[in-house]
Amino acid sequence: MKLRVVVIGANAAGAKAAAKAKRMNPHAEVTLIDRGNFISYGACGIPYFVSDTVADVKELMSTPVGVIRDANFFKKVKGVDVITGTEAIGIDRQTKTVQLLGNEGSKSFSLEYDRLVLATGSSPTLPPLKNRELVNILTVKAIEDAELLKEQAVAGKAACIVGGGLIGLETAEALKKKGMKVTVVEMRDQLLPGVLDPEMASLVEKHIRQNDVEVMTSCRVIGFDGTLEVRKVLTERGEVPADLVVLAPGVTPNAKLAAEAGLEIGATGAIAVDARMRTSDPAIYACGDCCETTHLVTGRKTYFPLGSTANKQGRVAGINAAGGDATFAGILGTSIVRVFSINAGRTGLTETEARAQGYDIEAVLSPAPDRAHFFPGAKPIALKLVAERSTGRVLGLQAVGEGAVDKRVDAAAAAITFGATADQLSHLDLAYAPPYSAAMDNLIVAADILKNKLAGHAKGISPRKVKQMLDEGDDFILLDVRSPAEHAEVGIEGATLVPLGILREKLEGLPRGREIVAFCKVSLRGYEAQKILEAAGFENAKFMDGGIMTWP
Amino acid sequence: MKLRVVVIGANAAGAKAAAKAKRMNPHAEVTLIDRGNFISYGACGIPYFVSDTVADVKELMSTPVGVIRDANFFKKVKGVDVITGTEAIGIDRQTKTVQLLGNEGSKSFSLEYDRLVLATGSSPTLPPLKNRELVNILTVKAIEDAELLKEQAVAGKAACIVGGGLIGLETAEALKKKGMKVTVVEMRDQLLPGVLDPEMASLVEKHIRQNDVEVMTSCRVIGFDGTLEVRKVLTERGEVPADLVVLAPGVTPNAKLAAEAGLEIGATGAIAVDARMRTSDPAIYACGDCCETTHLVTGRKTYFPLGSTANKQGRVAGINAAGGDATFAGILGTSIVRVFSINAGRTGLTETEARAQGYDIEAVLSPAPDRAHFFPGAKPIALKLVAERSTGRVLGLQAVGEGAVDKRVDAAAAAITFGATADQLSHLDLAYAPPYSAAMDNLIVAADILKNKLAGHAKGISPRKVKQMLDEGDDFILLDVRSPAEHAEVGIEGATLVPLGILREKLEGLPRGREIVAFCKVSLRGYEAQKILEAAGFENAKFMDGGIMTWP
Ligand SMILES: Cc1cc2nc3c(=O)[nH]c(=O)nc-3n(C[C@H](O)[C@H](O)[C@H](O)COP(=O)(O)OP(=O)(O)OC[C@H]3O[C@@H](n4cnc5c(N)ncnc54)[C@H](O)[C@@H]3O)c2cc1C
Ligand SMILES: Cc1cc2nc3c(=O)[nH]c(=O)nc-3n(C[C@H](O)[C@H](O)[C@H](O)COP(=O)(O)OP(=O)(O)OC[C@H]3O[C@@H](n4cnc5c(N)ncnc54)[C@H](O)[C@@H]3O)c2cc1C
Ligand SMILES: CC(C)(COP(=O)(O)OP(=O)(O)OC[C@H]1O[C@@H](n2cnc3c(N)ncnc32)[C@H](O)[C@@H]1OP(=O)(O)O)[C@@H](O)C(=O)NCCC(=O)NCCS
Ligand SMILES: CC(C)(COP(=O)(O)OP(=O)(O)OC[C@H]1O[C@@H](n2cnc3c(N)ncnc32)[C@H](O)[C@@H]1OP(=O)(O)O)[C@@H](O)C(=O)NCCC(=O)NCCS
Ligand SMILES: [Ca+2]
Ligand SMILES: [Ca+2]
Repeated sequence: MKLRVVVIGANAAGAKAAAKAKRMNPHAEVTLIDRGNFISYGACGIPYFVSDTVADVKELMSTPVGVIRDANFFKKVKGVDVITGTEAIGIDRQTKTVQLLGNEGSKSFSLEYDRLVLATGSSPTLPPLKNRELVNILTVKAIEDAELLKEQAVAGKAACIVGGGLIGLETAEALKKKGMKVTVVEMRDQLLPGVLDPEMASLVEKHIRQNDVEVMTSCRVIGFDGTLEVRKVLTERGEVPADLVVLAPGVTPNAKLAAEAGLEIGATGAIAVDARMRTSDPAIYACGDCCETTHLVTGRKTYFPLGSTANKQGRVAGINAAGGDATFAGILGTSIVRVFSINAGRTGLTETEARAQGYDIEAVLSPAPDRAHFFPGAKPIALKLVAERSTGRVLGLQAVGEGAVDKRVDAAAAAITFGATADQLSHLDLAYAPPYSAAMDNLIVAADILKNKLAGHAKGISPRKVKQMLDEGDDFILLDVRSPAEHAEVGIEGATLVPLGILREKLEGLPRGREIVAFCKVSLRGYEAQKILEAAGFENAKFMDGGIMTWP
Repeated sequence: MKLRVVVIGANAAGAKAAAKAKRMNPHAEVTLIDRGNFISYGACGIPYFVSDTVADVKELMSTPVGVIRDANFFKKVKGVDVITGTEAIGIDRQTKTVQLLGNEGSKSFSLEYDRLVLATGSSPTLPPLKNRELVNILTVKAIEDAELLKEQAVAGKAACIVGGGLIGLETAEALKKKGMKVTVVEMRDQLLPGVLDPEMASLVEKHIRQNDVEVMTSCRVIGFDGTLEVRKVLTERGEVPADLVVLAPGVTPNAKLAAEAGLEIGATGAIAVDARMRTSDPAIYACGDCCETTHLVTGRKTYFPLGSTANKQGRVAGINAAGGDATFAGILGTSIVRVFSINAGRTGLTETEARAQGYDIEAVLSPAPDRAHFFPGAKPIALKLVAERSTGRVLGLQAVGEGAVDKRVDAAAAAITFGATADQLSHLDLAYAPPYSAAMDNLIVAADILKNKLAGHAKGISPRKVKQMLDEGDDFILLDVRSPAEHAEVGIEGATLVPLGILREKLEGLPRGREIVAFCKVSLRGYEAQKILEAAGFENAKFMDGGIMTWP
């Protein structure tokens, strides 16, 4: 008899699993089920559809050559049977049947499987908020949401985005581009809280504000006000007028079907799977946003729902469900977002996450042009590299700026996957020509600084700490080693100017006993100043990580 | 007594070594010597200065904040003494002295060292050619060359570039941008012979021709003709008119000083060094274009002179010369070039190189948009991935196209450094959002195809082989599985059209016994066709690697 593979959920993970299962085992009968009407669409493209960057929503459901991926396509091209508008409401693991219910109260029916793949995805997390049911309070997840949101995005009106994460910020940009007045409200004290450390996130926040989007952090939403239609968002810090509200507070795995069938659910709340994407039932696999995975740095289970991962896991689940053998090792929490013209990405652990996991870490801030500084179009990017102090193992990279952050994130992701140390990272043979990077790529420089810090050669101090010391009137010298012109253009109050080029001559004038913190634009010269001061016998010389470029 | 570190050669490797040695050991006396008048300049920027992309040659010698790196800068900022216009003409290893000779016949003098660093770089390789001494036959290496070349780049006149390597092509673009008629003459049967496999190089060649540069491959230059000034380049295949000739035939390590001092020279002709960049004399280090290094894939010694490597090696040599301890493991031959609007890069071994080294390999061609196909600005790139068949270890990646090839090369470089297999490459957690890549990055897709080939699931055949089969009238069916519209737009003569969407219905019409080679735009659908045919019992079904996009 033919192997019957049933896949529940027909978006990224499920569609991938089904297509791959059929290619893997052409004699299998593969059935793909979804409760929705749209399948196999790029949810990630929704913000770009809303902003008119993508003209037609069909583009999000088409192949690169413009063929729509509907049920007919899956049948004709992939050899997969698709049933849409049909929800899986129960799994009987004894009889290996799935209970299905069609839309609009049609009778339920059941389907037998030899192998079941759960790809039920995730749903926006919706905390109970007062007057949540008012019209114009939307979420962004499915094609229907996208169309609704685009309709409601009326120029001149006010939009409030609840949640300053990846989807929140992309939506903020989209609505701004549609001419709306946009406010982002975030409960935590920074944007992109699960993604970046505070000082990196503040670079993004600055950019967003410059693009005329209001940002309110440390601000919890209590509920909404309005009659029929929403008019205000009520927060702990007052009211925000809003004709449109987008809730983007993160997502929750759709694990209920699995849980009710008695499958093991992980501590993350998502379906537990092994490296072969198998659940606690050997006949059932799970993949994508509905299941958890392993973090390759910590080795711990984690929930990190992304379309990239959903596709990879779907492929593995599809292979195994069809009788093949494949494994998926895990993820690094790699994520990236463009908001207006700033790019922000990370891979591995942030400093905050690493500390929370108990690592003793060293961190580096390194801002620099993204290619040869003399090459037209060079744009700044700031890197933050985090390593374990005892081993020098790189734990994570963050990158923010108008230049090419994605390639630094990808190269770091590859290196971190293999447990690279700072020294190994610093010697990667990355591609250099002036249009692409400096002779020493930003990643190489960051790794060198990290090595210097780990070896005690470089003594950095974070800009936030310096600011605190200034605010608290601490006794230290803040030494600006830039040129007088740079100093005049933008400075830090309380700083003493001694350009690096004359520092060696001016050492006499500096007090020996006190702490000296040198800085420049990025703190390359700040570091050189530290070295010069130390060589001259100054015992408490440091530089400010990242210089003016990462000054809060 | 102070440690005396003498560095010969004050460009990338030497300047880096000197600066780092001083930071490492502030009590050392570091002296940096160069026979030229310009030091610490970005030779890589020369083509961009010639094309007026970079306005002032000083930008190539400046720090990112615009300070010129001259002798004064090195003294004031880096604490390094610089002597320019002075050639090292001999090393007495017994007495640890370097023999120096100033320009213009000044008397020679000597300098004692405790540690010597050789960073003498490379010079253009100049084969003996008839009438080589004619005016307007130039090379591109130093600042003086750059200025001369820019002067001679007269709009409307004819330039001939001898050598279709990285520097040759960058120079061709620069001269074209200055309005010259440009011909590139290359002895080998493809452009970028040391960098790309033929089918990848031909994508570059096509682009260059479209930009109105003549390309003559398999064409050996014999000499030149003209009176005083050059007028013609004489080749085995006829004459090429030329008012300006640029010789860009590759470079030779400046190893004479080392060789005469009895230091070991490697089989590559460059100075032999260990992982600490130490020569056969424990007091003498070498770094940059003058020395050889280890290829991380083959483990063999290789000569691969690049500015990126020169800087890294300089830093290691500087640390060790100053009494510290650092190592440099080796390189992957990573290189990249932009010519007009095409980017071409590689890391690791090409197919040609891998076969020459005796590897049994599998290769993949995978062309695709460089980001979500629906995202504006998406541009095609073609990847070629090469792996060792027995182990699945990735040996090399090549990437060519108008889109972002650099980041795929960098991520692959990182992965190959750690011996990644195709499976590991396919699961890298690369950064995905629509502005940056598809949900499955090009590299992930290429790795999946590779896995399919290694496992026997995918049966590819190279476009060159298909062309040969067509030319020789072989008995096979070339199956175009694209849409009728695509087929009408650009096709391959002799191909049979059966769009993928109706292939399952048209199987009856196809002969069972014969070889069938399916293709589409990139061969994703070609591969699906292979799977469909196989499932239906066709035993000799294949797809054409890379589809129409890599058709010769
Ligand atoms: C606005 C937005 C932007 C995003 N941007 C990015 C990005 O830039 N990069 C990135 O990597 N990811 C991004 N994502 C996340 C990405 O879209 C998801 O990770 C991906 O869609 C997950 O795929 P999935 O198939 O696992 O789950 P889902 O996409 O959630 O699909 C699950 C499917 O299962 C169906 N289903 C659920 N339960 C049942 C049931 N009981 N019976 C039948 N059918 C059921 C649902 O109808 C749905 O179609 C973004 C998401 C959104 C919303
Ligand atoms: C046009 C062009 C484009 C390039 N593009 C790239 C690119 O895109 N990417 C890349 O990575 N690389 C590129 N390179 C290569 C890069 O410039 C070199 O790899 C780099 O300059 C090597 O640095 P080095 O210090 O080892 O040697 P060199 O730059 O050759 O410097 C050696 C120095 O030593 C001096 N010297 C030699 N012998 C003596 C002696 N006996 N006494 C005193 N002084 C001596 C010379 O005067 C010279 O200043 C390019 C090169 C050129 C010419
Ligand atoms: C597209 C989708 C249905 C998956 O179906 P699929 O058939 O596996 O995917 P594709 O049509 O891209 O085909 C990929 C296959 O072609 C192969 N392929 C791709 N390019 C190829 C080429 N040039 N030559 C040969 N094979 C190629 C791949 O290796 C893969 O085969 P494999 O899985 O057997 O290794 C699923 O990914 C999907 O629904 N995506 C849209 C939703 C989404 O991804 N959302 C998340 C982001 S917002
Ligand atoms: C510039 C050059 C002289 C090297 O000098 P250098 O002092 O080592 O280099 P920089 O001025 O860039 O300073 C780099 C130092 O600052 C550190 N640094 C850079 N940014 C920093 C930051 N934000 N915070 C702290 N330290 C920083 C680096 O780690 C490095 O120190 P280290 O070597 O001790 O680790 C040499 O590379 C050169 O001549 N380059 C031009 C020629 C060339 O590269 N050609 C090839 C390409 S065409
Ligand atoms: Ca170059
Ligand atoms: Ca996104």
